[in-house]
Amino acid sequence: MGNEVRFAILGAGRIGQVHAENLTRHVQEAEVVAIADVVPEAAERAARRFGIPHASGDPAEIFSRDDVDAVAICSSTETHAEFIIRAARSGKHAFCEKPIALDLAAVDEALAAVDESGTKLQIGFNRRFDPNFRGIRDAVREGEIGTPYLVQITSRDPAPPPIGYVKSSGGLFLDMMIHDFDMARFLLDDEVEAVSATGAVRVDEAIGAAGDIDTAVVSIRYRCGALGVITNSRQAVYGSDQRVEVLGSLGSVSCENNTPDRVIRQTEAGVIHAKPLYFFLERYQAAYADELRSFIRAIREDCEVEVTGADGRAPVALALAAGLSYRERRVVAMSEIGA
Amino acid sequence: MGNEVRFAILGAGRIGQVHAENLTRHVQEAEVVAIADVVPEAAERAARRFGIPHASGDPAEIFSRDDVDAVAICSSTETHAEFIIRAARSGKHAFCEKPIALDLAAVDEALAAVDESGTKLQIGFNRRFDPNFRGIRDAVREGEIGTPYLVQITSRDPAPPPIGYVKSSGGLFLDMMIHDFDMARFLLDDEVEAVSATGAVRVDEAIGAAGDIDTAVVSIRYRCGALGVITNSRQAVYGSDQRVEVLGSLGSVSCENNTPDRVIRQTEAGVIHAKPLYFFLERYQAAYADELRSFIRAIREDCEVEVTGADGRAPVALALAAGLSYRERRVVAMSEIGA
Amino acid sequence: MGNEVRFAILGAGRIGQVHAENLTRHVQEAEVVAIADVVPEAAERAARRFGIPHASGDPAEIFSRDDVDAVAICSSTETHAEFIIRAARSGKHAFCEKPIALDLAAVDEALAAVDESGTKLQIGFNRRFDPNFRGIRDAVREGEIGTPYLVQITSRDPAPPPIGYVKSSGGLFLDMMIHDFDMARFLLDDEVEAVSATGAVRVDEAIGAAGDIDTAVVSIRYRCGALGVITNSRQAVYGSDQRVEVLGSLGSVSCENNTPDRVIRQTEAGVIHAKPLYFFLERYQAAYADELRSFIRAIREDCEVEVTGADGRAPVALALAAGLSYRERRVVAMSEIGA
Amino acid sequence: MGNEVRFAILGAGRIGQVHAENLTRHVQEAEVVAIADVVPEAAERAARRFGIPHASGDPAEIFSRDDVDAVAICSSTETHAEFIIRAARSGKHAFCEKPIALDLAAVDEALAAVDESGTKLQIGFNRRFDPNFRGIRDAVREGEIGTPYLVQITSRDPAPPPIGYVKSSGGLFLDMMIHDFDMARFLLDDEVEAVSATGAVRVDEAIGAAGDIDTAVVSIRYRCGALGVITNSRQAVYGSDQRVEVLGSLGSVSCENNTPDRVIRQTEAGVIHAKPLYFFLERYQAAYADELRSFIRAIREDCEVEVTGADGRAPVALALAAGLSYRERRVVAMSEIGA
Repeated sequence: MGNEVRFAILGAGRIGQVHAENLTRHVQEAEVVAIADVVPEAAERAARRFGIPHASGDPAEIFSRDDVDAVAICSSTETHAEFIIRAARSGKHAFCEKPIALDLAAVDEALAAVDESGTKLQIGFNRRFDPNFRGIRDAVREGEIGTPYLVQITSRDPAPPPIGYVKSSGGLFLDMMIHDFDMARFLLDDEVEAVSATGAVRVDEAIGAAGDIDTAVVSIRYRCGALGVITNSRQAVYGSDQRVEVLGSLGSVSCENNTPDRVIRQTEAGVIHAKPLYFFLERYQAAYADELRSFIRAIREDCEVEVTGADGRAPVALALAAGLSYRERRVVAMSEIGA
Repeated sequence: MGNEVRFAILGAGRIGQVHAENLTRHVQEAEVVAIADVVPEAAERAARRFGIPHASGDPAEIFSRDDVDAVAICSSTETHAEFIIRAARSGKHAFCEKPIALDLAAVDEALAAVDESGTKLQIGFNRRFDPNFRGIRDAVREGEIGTPYLVQITSRDPAPPPIGYVKSSGGLFLDMMIHDFDMARFLLDDEVEAVSATGAVRVDEAIGAAGDIDTAVVSIRYRCGALGVITNSRQAVYGSDQRVEVLGSLGSVSCENNTPDRVIRQTEAGVIHAKPLYFFLERYQAAYADELRSFIRAIREDCEVEVTGADGRAPVALALAAGLSYRERRVVAMSEIGA
Repeated sequence: MGNEVRFAILGAGRIGQVHAENLTRHVQEAEVVAIADVVPEAAERAARRFGIPHASGDPAEIFSRDDVDAVAICSSTETHAEFIIRAARSGKHAFCEKPIALDLAAVDEALAAVDESGTKLQIGFNRRFDPNFRGIRDAVREGEIGTPYLVQITSRDPAPPPIGYVKSSGGLFLDMMIHDFDMARFLLDDEVEAVSATGAVRVDEAIGAAGDIDTAVVSIRYRCGALGVITNSRQAVYGSDQRVEVLGSLGSVSCENNTPDRVIRQTEAGVIHAKPLYFFLERYQAAYADELRSFIRAIREDCEVEVTGADGRAPVALALAAGLSYRERRVVAMSEIGA
Repeated sequence: MGNEVRFAILGAGRIGQVHAENLTRHVQEAEVVAIADVVPEAAERAARRFGIPHASGDPAEIFSRDDVDAVAICSSTETHAEFIIRAARSGKHAFCEKPIALDLAAVDEALAAVDESGTKLQIGFNRRFDPNFRGIRDAVREGEIGTPYLVQITSRDPAPPPIGYVKSSGGLFLDMMIHDFDMARFLLDDEVEAVSATGAVRVDEAIGAAGDIDTAVVSIRYRCGALGVITNSRQAVYGSDQRVEVLGSLGSVSCENNTPDRVIRQTEAGVIHAKPLYFFLERYQAAYADELRSFIRAIREDCEVEVTGADGRAPVALALAAGLSYRERRVVAMSEIGA
């Protein structure tokens, strides 16, 4: 067909493989020409599995390839900003997993490079492409609930990540709640003015020992005056529990969890419905493909990406503000941290 | 039958009439001998409507009657503490609507009088008798969800009260959220250690002009370490929206709203279920009768009431702490305000 | 207050006590002056329990009392027609439990006596007063679903009745499905033209040994041309399962079961909702009071009762037709059996 | 990869394109080498769209190709039996859309040819691969509901097909309810012993004028003694409404409809959930791919297909019996029509 967008994938870990599968099988108009990972065997294994012609142990060499239009940055967080910059400087579009970086200076440097180059950068906030959340955003945008009063975001993982991951993740606000900060902005298409965070270690003391929390409540105030609250728990044994609600002057719009089926058992034990999908990769399966389709459309039609660099920066700022609020036990204005 | 508890009702307004109807018609083992209201016509009208033998324009004279075992204090808030004290001193049990008072000194004086007299005092936190909320509390108490992590209380009135009422109500935290503060304590059977409040005027600017807010998010931290969040809105046009959820190590327990029926319409417009019951008196109809049954049982069996004076004090303290937190934009420890 | 309708209750068994409780406690404008049962002790016990002044072991003497405006016929089925006739001849209104009789000649004789006397007769099809079913009927009547296509009535008892009861009940079609035949007529406000029945013994072989079935499917054709189906099972271990649906040109309207609460547990075992109310007396608690209110209104305002003698006759005819269809394995036109 | 099953697709209409898309894009281990249609342009268009190397206007020539392991028979119903026979005689496996034929003699001839050749034949009852229905079948099979009492199958199309299609379809029982007859057998893994059908024209008089019905209720009796009922309507304006329920001695298992999202709107108009998916191709999207995966597995592992020729024959027999029952207004035993 000739005019597919030619991708290279940087990082052959879990999320790299998700994108590889989508780009090679489910997303039309994409072609994957190379995959790189600092562990060469991982790159090779993924190349074989997904029929990718070239595997490399050196992500850096990707940027010099002429047959690559765009990179999907799926490597570890500390490489994101650097790879965004390299992609921009070599004229390649970049799709980058969240977060861009764990500090705003690094984020800003990366975004400046993209600005300069004129290439596209889309951030992997896949939940924006979930039909439930998008349906709610659309309902709000179309005025179905009138003036927004209150946003409630409930986000619970089925089980905490390994402690090793916790230590390097930047903490719950930057690793887990960052998705919800993005959701908060997405739902109202408005910026957050101030945050107030509380947190606790309830799920596993080892998480506390690693300097993190596993349970959190963050209140937010939007510029428009609406309030919001995000609650996070690292453990909901019944599955990935992700619900949002927006209340406004004309009513509320919310969503239930997606389930693997709609089967109902009625027995002496009760009326039993299916549990939420357990794993976020199942929950957001369609969204992962759709965010790539959206990115490719932006490249081919040369229009604005749906999740911009600024959309990648704002949740990092919110996560940093939440951390500060949590430590100082007070409301933190976003202006305090350069947002 | 001879051994009914003989009640006098103080206050013949809306809530006084609710209790009058329950005590005269639906609650066995109660008898209403008198009703008093500072507006004599109101007392007389209610007496006629509910077949109460004696109507009075002077609540004070009630306390000298020999044929009264217990009073139901349904008068305006500023009289509650005084009437509790008078009831205690005249040896009468008291069922008192919330809040006891708008400041803790007045509350403490009233509770001291009750302690001294040995009479019973039960506070009208009727939601504790709602089957949904009680079912959730029981599930938590019986360990069904394991160690509690997070409590989420969503509480929305269908429409704001008249501005005149707003001005004298003590404000959203003391008037509306006080029910949710009680619920927060009830669900975990634990005390709150600290609160953090945000608020906004979203529903009606006149509420802001009256010095109050109509939308609020309050985070709480329990002594056990669990977190909680209460959200309030003065307006949910679809009805009285009151849901709670407790998440713990073994799962979550929550409730949906009660509806007038379970009819479902499927048309081109969607799949349409009944709205929540609109008015709190409908929503809690059974609970209003059950709290009186519980009070009567405590009197007749001379056992502890289910909602004690301390249960009446704690939410007042929480509301005051929330107000302070909101004004000072910081976490407030309950110890700061004498709780 | 002077103008209450004065009732006598005939039969102090389970359903007699339900009506006694409603008439003495919950239904305004009724007064119960006497209760009679062929077992005198039963009448006396009920009289004491509900504060009814007069108890009798001879139902017949009731009809000569001057202080009785209306009788509630709650005695065994074989006495219904006779008591309707006696009530009519003594100028008393009658509220009669279903079925009027097990054969149409007896029904017709009773209805003729009522016609002649000009007294009121209402049949105890309480489900017509259930908010769910009434809501569906109203939606159909108001054209919300357009032209009706198909009616589906699912009706399951939690557990089969005692075998002794099965033997004297007239069988599943006359004892259990009779409610659903009434519902079928009520929902569309139309008559049934033909029925086709199948049945089986699945729940308990003793029911088959007693000459009855415990599981049945009956198809109906309405005069208007719409189709319907009623399914019955004597056992649904999770509770009283009673749902109806009407599909039409503009959509469908249906209902879910009522539950004791709206609590939801999410655990590793699933997402568990409350079971349907187990017992029909709980399920139809409000309906039992409302049918009496309706009857009293018809008496006091001298207007047509909401469930007429003809409404009592039609389901008996349908049950007889279903029995014939089941035995002869063919469609039976209602005209064949004089309906 | 070398050992894909090589398919030719016979018929490039709607369902042929569904299978072409699945076999070329979503089903691993399949390769499509040719597509044929009596309208050559249709074959060519589909070949271009799905990247199929060979397009033909002569389905017959497909059977002589050496590079075809299996055919997917998606042509019009009257060709199914003939193509099954040709496939068997040329040593090719066949996946055939339902129904095999509209009369049992033709079905039996086709099945005999397959038996003789030892090739695989799978019938396209895709609903067996839907997660809801499969979940229910599995629950029944694993004894979760104990002894089956009653099966209820509700099946409604969003809108009737064009009248031209109605005329050639074999009628509602053979065209639409055939899926439900298959479902009835699948859910209990048991055969039907007798059927009793009623039908009506409610949706569109033109359907009646074409000699068909658009609304039907069919009762069934299983060999095991359980009862069942299937209801069909050609029109449910809110979407494709397909629910089944099995009641047994330990409870019931049922399913709700699949919806495009789980968004809920609460407004003054009610609590509004998403409508069922409108179109059966959306509803059964995953099932269409999964039935092909199952067929390919049977070929590669040389094991029994999941939907056999006998499974294709039985629903045809049931549809014929239902037609006879409808015309003669009586129960028809399956033994009467050679089943």
